[in-house]
This record gives sequence, C-alpha cells and structure tokens, in this order.
Amino acid sequence: MFKIIKTENLARRGIFETVHGTIQTPFFMNVGTSAAIKGGISSLDLKELKCQVELCNTYHLHIRPSDDVIYKMGGLHKFMNWDRPILTDSGGFQVFSLAKLRKIKEEGVYFNSHVDGKKIFMGPEESMRIQSNLASTIAMAFDECVENPSPREYVKPSCDRTTRWLYRCKAELDRLNTLDKTINKNQMLFGINQGGTFDDLRIEHAKTISELDLSGYAIGGLAVGEPTEVMYHILDIVEEHLPRNKPRYLMGVGTPSNIIEGVARGIDMFDCVMPSRNARHGTVFTWQGIRHLNNQKYIADTSPIDEECDCPVCRSFTRGYIRHLFKAGEQLAGRLAVMHNLYFYNTLMEKIRLSLDENRFEQFRKEYSEKLSTLI
Amino acid sequence: MFKIIKTENLARRGIFETVHGTIQTPFFMNVGTSAAIKGGISSLDLKELKCQVELCNTYHLHIRPSDDVIYKMGGLHKFMNWDRPILTDSGGFQVFSLAKLRKIKEEGVYFNSHVDGKKIFMGPEESMRIQSNLASTIAMAFDECVENPSPREYVKPSCDRTTRWLYRCKAELDRLNTLDKTINKNQMLFGINQGGTFDDLRIEHAKTISELDLSGYAIGGLAVGEPTEVMYHILDIVEEHLPRNKPRYLMGVGTPSNIIEGVARGIDMFDCVMPSRNARHGTVFTWQGIRHLNNQKYIADTSPIDEECDCPVCRSFTRGYIRHLFKAGEQLAGRLAVMHNLYFYNTLMEKIRLSLDENRFEQFRKEYSEKLSTLI
Repeated sequence: MFKIIKTENLARRGIFETVHGTIQTPFFMNVGTSAAIKGGISSLDLKELKCQVELCNTYHLHIRPSDDVIYKMGGLHKFMNWDRPILTDSGGFQVFSLAKLRKIKEEGVYFNSHVDGKKIFMGPEESMRIQSNLASTIAMAFDECVENPSPREYVKPSCDRTTRWLYRCKAELDRLNTLDKTINKNQMLFGINQGGTFDDLRIEHAKTISELDLSGYAIGGLAVGEPTEVMYHILDIVEEHLPRNKPRYLMGVGTPSNIIEGVARGIDMFDCVMPSRNARHGTVFTWQGIRHLNNQKYIADTSPIDEECDCPVCRSFTRGYIRHLFKAGEQLAGRLAVMHNLYFYNTLMEKIRLSLDENRFEQFRKEYSEKLSTLI
Repeated sequence: MFKIIKTENLARRGIFETVHGTIQTPFFMNVGTSAAIKGGISSLDLKELKCQVELCNTYHLHIRPSDDVIYKMGGLHKFMNWDRPILTDSGGFQVFSLAKLRKIKEEGVYFNSHVDGKKIFMGPEESMRIQSNLASTIAMAFDECVENPSPREYVKPSCDRTTRWLYRCKAELDRLNTLDKTINKNQMLFGINQGGTFDDLRIEHAKTISELDLSGYAIGGLAVGEPTEVMYHILDIVEEHLPRNKPRYLMGVGTPSNIIEGVARGIDMFDCVMPSRNARHGTVFTWQGIRHLNNQKYIADTSPIDEECDCPVCRSFTRGYIRHLFKAGEQLAGRLAVMHNLYFYNTLMEKIRLSLDENRFEQFRKEYSEKLSTLI
C-alpha cells in the first residue's frame, strides 16, 4: 500500500495507495474539524486548492451531528461530498484539550461534552466504532496526548496505557472491518507514538507499537508546549525505530519550516490548523515570507498576496481589496486568505516532492526553511 | 441604450446596453454592500450564480476604505475584480437609516459615521463625486428616503427638495463625466421617485423628474413600512407617468412574489438583501416554497436544498450536511445557503424573461406568485 520511490538522506518520496485513491507523499492534510474547513471552504474548493487528504475530528462529529447521522447518510465521504482520502483523528486529543470534567480510567475517558455538558464515555472501542461509522480512510488509535513538559511519573504509565489501548483499538477495528454493515471495510489503523520528552520512553514505545504491523505510525504529543529543538530531537531519535515501509505522520505540525524539517527527518504526513487559523486573522504565507494583511501599508496595494503564487485568490484579488474586506468584517476576507494559505501549504508539499524527485531536497531546504518563516 | 423587445400587458422584456456589457431585463441586482456579498461570496462566485449586475453602497465605501482608495486602485470594477455592470446606491438611504445625529439642510445632510462617529457632510455633489470615483456603471441620485407612513407636511417639502437635489446631481455628474481624471466617462444617472404614500405627490414627482431625460428611473421610498398592497397601488398609479423607453427600478424589493408582481406592473430592475440575509439564517427559497434548513426534520436528509435546482450547491450538497454546518456554526453554512438563494433569484429573473419571450408571463405569474412565498 505504501511504497517509497526515492530518498535523500532520511527524507522520503513515496506513493500511498488507499481505497479512496493514491496519495503522493510527503503530504499535508487540510483540517476540516466538523466536516468543513473553517472560513467557508467547501470540498469543491479543496480540489482547486490541490488538497489530497482532508482530516476530520471524531470527537466533534460524534457530538454533532453524531456518527449515527453520518453513518445513516452514507459516511463522511458522501456527507461532505469529498471522494478523496479522509483521516479521522481518534477524538483523544479533543477529549483532553476541550472536554470538561474528564476522568481517565483503564477502560477509557469519562467526560462532559463542551457543547451541552452531556456525560460521555470514550474508550478505544468507542473511538473505533465512531470512526468506523464515519468510514474514514484512515482511523487513528485512541491515545492520551500528554502536554510537555510532564513528569516521568505521569508519562510512563500513560504511555503504557496508550499501548494497551492500541491493542484494543486494533482488535476492535479488525472486528468492525468484517461486519456487513461497515461502509469502509478497508479502514486503516495508525498507531501513535507517545512518551513525552523522554528519549528512552519514546524509543521503547516506538519499538513496542512497531511490532503490531499497522498501516502507519504517527508521532503524537509534540508541538504541545516543548521548544522546537526538543521536537526535532525527538524526531531524530524515534525515526530509526519506526518501520521504514510504513507512512509516518507528525501530528498537529506546523509552520512551513517545521514541515521542511520534518520531511528532512523522515516524516511523510502532516496536519495543522495554522494555515487556516492564521489566515482568518489576516496572516498569510508567501514564498518571500509571512505577511500581515491588516497592515496599513497594503491599503491601496494592487499586487496579489504573493506574486509568485497562482492560486485562485492571487489570480483574481489584490492585497488592498482583501485588507479592506478584513477591516470591513466581511467573511470573504477570511475565505480568500484561508484559500491562499491552504494552496500555499499544498504547493509547499508539491515543491518538496518535486525537489525529492530531482535529488535537490537539501538545496530546497537550505533555500526555504528559514525564509518562509520570516515576517516581511 | 435601453430597448424593449417584447411586452405582455404592462410587463416588459428588454435589453439594456452599458459600457460594462449588455443586461437582459427584467433583472435582479445582487447586493455587495461593502464591495462584497455577505456570506463570503466573491466576484468569481457571482458569475457562477448568473448575476448580471452587482450593487454596492456609496455610503459604506466612502467611509471604508474611502472612494479615494478605490479610485486610486482603478475604480470599483478593478477593486472587486468584477467586469460586468455595477450600480451604486447614492448613500442617501444609508445616511437616513444608519448614520447618527443627522441634520438635513437644503445643501445636504450632516451626520456622524456609524463606524467611528466622525462628522461627515453629504449632498448631491458629494454623492456624485464619490460615485464618480467609484466609477460604477449607474449612479443613483441623492435623495431623501422617507419612511411610511409619514405626514403629508413632511413628505411634500422633502419630495420637492429631492427634486432640487436631482437637478444638482445631474449638473455635477455631467461635469464629472467630462473630466480627464474620470474613470467611467459614460456613468449613467438614475432619478428616484418619492412622495410617500400620497398618490398626487407620487404622480407629480414622477412627471417632474421624467422631464430630465435621465438614463433610468427608480421608485424609492417603498417597502419601508407600508403594507404590500399599498406598494402595489403606488406602482400602479406611477407606472404611466414614467418614460416608457427608460429602465425602471423598484428599490430594495423584495420577495419572489413582490418581484413577479413588480414585473407585472412594468418594473425592469430590482435589488434586495433578502436572499442573502435570509440565507445566513438558514432560510432558503425553492421552486416549491420556502424552507428553514435549521428544522430538525432535515437532520439526515440526503436531498439537495431544492431538487429542481441546478446551482453549484444543489449539485453537490445535502440538506442534512448544510443543516449540520448551521448547527456547528461553520461559515460554510451561510456561504452555501447564500449561493443557493442568489442563484434562485437570478434564475427566477431568467424564468420571468423566458416566459415574456414566450408570451406566457401571466401564466408564470399565476403558477408561482403565491407558491414561492409559501413555507414548506
């Protein structure tokens, strides 16, 4: 299913076959939390923006409109009108970051909905059943995401429990994939490496979950409080302990620079709300660096957001117009900026892949890794 | 410039030539108050939605980003990236409905900006200069829009002042159209009929402004408090006193039913925020009647908003999905509903034109005039 066609040092250029189509790796997933990208972006727009994979959140969809409704409507693909691959988060991260009054037990997590306070229980089996109902291409294992820094006394037992939960996830998803009523019988399961910022825990956990021969492996619990250098260090030490022939996913990361550095450390998959969230506040990424569109200097600027960009927004609208839309509180402002930023991220991945194809990824990295994070 | 190619009783099917392209009449203008349609609709979307003419507001654009900025950027067409006709409101209606602490004098209106409270003066000449800077296709005369009902002692002198203001508008726009710096030297001026709900004042005023041989005539001061039947009555009595060979514009109206009834009374042009405003609250127009998408009955409904509609939204998304987006507070909800409603209004006009072409407008009117306003 996953084939590496080229490497440059640790960086990998691959092809990932799924029942919903082929993904060129490395790639960036566009985040549609509640089955829509924030800022008014539809699945029709996503195709124009070169999105390969959309990511949706199990927790949000379970609460509203419920996975039962989505199952009844034929699964997430039909629900959103998106025929390419979808990855669903396990719900774990949202339970730990959004839900109220949560209690973690061996069986799973008891918590209250952040929408209406309703009591909910979610464990590995529940997460798999919900994701099976959603019928995503890739289901993520239910884990505990621990913030950094956390004491070793907390991280070690949490990490062990995450391992036990992973076994339960696999058993349950294997069972669900055989059921007649299941929409996507080829749903894949990815395990998630945890272990906080402790080298030995990370390595031990990576080795343990690798034994399970899952469809892919994520590195979780990063970009949750630790310095960037610590994140890169964890990637450096974990890399060799994850199976080479499986896609690797760095969860919730990051800036264009983080992504280039992640690829350099053997990562194939990324996701982050940053391009859409920043865009909604007027911050856009360009090939020259980062711009704040609210800046007074753009008031009558007739250039596009990025002269080097050929996205639908840069082909049609000016900095001055989009700045005006932000100042006037028009929703179109956010929409145009989000479209540009997602196109930028998806194009960044395209350029990374092309540089790998042409054996010049290290050169690309030198040219862009710092530049793209500079404010201009 | 305006040619009637067919009539059925008082209803007219025409062609209206402008420097920004030919308009098929009767038509509905899509309202982009601050140079954007609310709900995240861009000028690229508008073409897909069969919009012929966009309407923008002089008052809003004067205040933000200012007509000077838009002039500097090449006028409203370049600013919004819209190459078809644009009509600009005179600012009068907004001054009277939005601005604070206003004082009406013979020279014009003194008021405070609703954004930052800044003192502003706008009279006929200022309105023309702003609209000339915006370089719209059609400029509207600066008038006073009086709410209904208002006493005759107020309406009569107001109406006379609106006439004097119209003469000043014409003189100023004639002058502006000859200036070298002017972007659109063919900018057209429409006069606006006022007179409240008084038959004799309406008729007298219609006769007076008709003498000016303007590019078109609007009927203003309707749909501002009076019952629908009173509005239709005013249209009935004013119709014969407006020049036959000029387009007639019923300002700020209305429901699909109002539009059909307006066409039946000899109106060629309409505008209204209703389709976009209602859409943003989940209310959509269909060929069977009006739906509230927030209704619980649509929760798992896999039909499009309207099975008879071929708009980009109905071709791709279900009632259940859009209802979910409204409940989850996703901006995409409003965007999809607004797109559908604007497409519906523009298609309504297309169907009205076709029925006139085929001498069956009265039949169309009988079939749809009531039906389209029924809640289903």
